[in-house]
Amino acid sequence: MELLKGKPVADVIKEKTARLAEELMEKDIVPTLGILRIGENGSDIAYENSAVKIASSVGVHVEKYIMSEKSETEDVLDVIKVMNEDDNIHGILMFRPLPAHLDEELIRNHINTAKDVDGISDASVGGLFTGNMTGFPPCTAEAAMMIMEHYGIELSGKRAVVIGRSLVIGKPAAMMMMDRNATVTICHSRTKPEDLKEICRTSDIIVSAAGKCRTVGAEHVSGNQVIIDVGINFDEGGKMCGDADFDALEGKVSAITPAPGGVGSVTTALLMYHVARAAASAETAPETVSK
Amino acid sequence: MELLKGKPVADVIKEKTARLAEELMEKDIVPTLGILRIGENGSDIAYENSAVKIASSVGVHVEKYIMSEKSETEDVLDVIKVMNEDDNIHGILMFRPLPAHLDEELIRNHINTAKDVDGISDASVGGLFTGNMTGFPPCTAEAAMMIMEHYGIELSGKRAVVIGRSLVIGKPAAMMMMDRNATVTICHSRTKPEDLKEICRTSDIIVSAAGKCRTVGAEHVSGNQVIIDVGINFDEGGKMCGDADFDALEGKVSAITPAPGGVGSVTTALLMYHVARAAASAETAPETVSK
Repeated sequence: MELLKGKPVADVIKEKTARLAEELMEKDIVPTLGILRIGENGSDIAYENSAVKIASSVGVHVEKYIMSEKSETEDVLDVIKVMNEDDNIHGILMFRPLPAHLDEELIRNHINTAKDVDGISDASVGGLFTGNMTGFPPCTAEAAMMIMEHYGIELSGKRAVVIGRSLVIGKPAAMMMMDRNATVTICHSRTKPEDLKEICRTSDIIVSAAGKCRTVGAEHVSGNQVIIDVGINFDEGGKMCGDADFDALEGKVSAITPAPGGVGSVTTALLMYHVARAAASAETAPETVSK
Repeated sequence: MELLKGKPVADVIKEKTARLAEELMEKDIVPTLGILRIGENGSDIAYENSAVKIASSVGVHVEKYIMSEKSETEDVLDVIKVMNEDDNIHGILMFRPLPAHLDEELIRNHINTAKDVDGISDASVGGLFTGNMTGFPPCTAEAAMMIMEHYGIELSGKRAVVIGRSLVIGKPAAMMMMDRNATVTICHSRTKPEDLKEICRTSDIIVSAAGKCRTVGAEHVSGNQVIIDVGINFDEGGKMCGDADFDALEGKVSAITPAPGGVGSVTTALLMYHVARAAASAETAPETVSK
C-alpha cells in the first residue's frame, strides 16, 4: 500500500512558486495575497497564521483585512471593492462560512475573477463546468488532482467516484477528473449506503469529500482502490481525522492519502502558487501595463 | 413496458405557454422569438419551419434574422447586439454549429442571458453547475427532465447514468438529476465498453445522449431500467434513430422514450415556453418598466 503524502507534492509547488515570485521580484512586483477575515474564529486565525508562514517561505506577501463580525454586507462589499481595485493585491482569500447575517453568495461573487485565487466565485467554478476556464479552480479540488498527478495515478478510462457534491470540492473534482477522461460518479448524502458501497467497490479511484469520519471503510473497497481523502474532521474524542477510516483500510487498498498530511498540506501551497500566477498575469495584462 | 411518448408532455407545456402568451397579450406584449440562422443548412431550415408552426400555435411570434454563411464574426456579433437591445425580442435561438470560420464560443456568449432561451451561453449552463441559475437550461436536457417528471419517474435516491458529456445535454442533464438527488454517473467516449455495460445494468435510469445509433442495447439492461433516449441519429440506411436499439430493448426495460416521438418533440415546446417566460420576466423587470 502506497502512502500518498502531501509534503513532496507541496514541496514541488512551493519551489515553482518561489521561482515565479523571484522572477516577479526582479520586475519589482511583490506577489501579494489579501486575506479577508470577518470575526475572530479560531480555526480561521489558525489557518491564517499557517498561510502567512507558508507565504513568507515562498516570497508571497500577505496583507490582512480584518473586519468585525458585526460588519454588514455592504461594508464587506466595500472592502472587496478596495481589494479588487488595488493593483498591489493579486489574490484574495476570504474565510468562510461568513457570519450568518451576511449575504455570502453576493459577497463571494463580487471578488474579481482574476484575483479569486481560491476559486470561490460562480465565474471561477462555472468555468470548470463549461470548459471556459478563466479563473482559478478551488484549491482543495485542485490539490486532490495534483496529488494524483504527482504519484502517477492514471485517470483516463478509469472509474472514479466522488463522495460529496459541494461546489468547493465535490463538483469541481468530478469535472476535473472527467476532463482527464475518467468515468465519474458523484455520490452524496442521498445516495443509499448500499449503492455507495457498491459504487466504491467497483471504482478505481475514490475521492472522499463528505466531511464525516469513517465515510469510507473496509466495506467500501475491494483491494485495488486509490483513496484521496479530502475530509478534515474531528472524531468524538476531538481527534483530527479524514473521511477514510485509515486503520480499517490499511493494507486493503492500493494507495491512500493520510489525513492530516495529505490533501490539506497541498492546498495552501497551491493557494500561494495561484497568487504568484495571478501576479504574473496582472503584469502581462494590458490594463495594468498601460498604467 | 411503458412507452414514454413526448406528445402528452409537449401538449401540457404548449397549453401552459399559450395561457401565458394570452395573459401577456392582454398587456399588449407579444412574446417574440428571434431566430438567427447563418447560411442555408437544410436541417436548420426544417427545424425553423417546424418552430414557426409550433410558435404560432401557442401565440409566440417569430422574427427571423438570416445571414449569409460568409458573414464574419463581427457581423454576427452586431446582429446579436441588435437582438439583445430590441425590447420586442424576448428570446434568441441561434442555429449551431456555425460555419467553421466563425468564433462560435465568442458569439454564443454574447447572447444576453435573459434572452438565451436555449441555454447556450456559458452563463446559462454554468448556473446549472453552481446552482445560481439565472438564465434558462438547455431545452433538450430540460425536456428529458420534463418527461421523467410527467411520467412520475422518481429520481431521489436512484442511480442514474448519463451517456455523453456535452455542454448541450450530458453535463446539464447530470446536474439536473443530481439536483433531484439521484446518484449520477457520467459516461463518455473514453468509458470502457465493459464499464458502460455494468454501469448501465446497475442503474435505474439511463439518459443517452451519445449521438450514435445502438449505443444502448439489450446487453446494457437488466430488466428494470428507464431509458430516456436523447439521440437523434441516422442509421446506415438513412433511417432516423435514437441512441437506443429500440427493437432489441422492447420488453426488456421498464420504460423507454421512442425516437422520434420522444424527447425531441418536447424540446421545441419548451423553447416556446422559455420565450413566453422571458417575455413575462422582461415585463416585470425594472429596466423595462422604467421605459
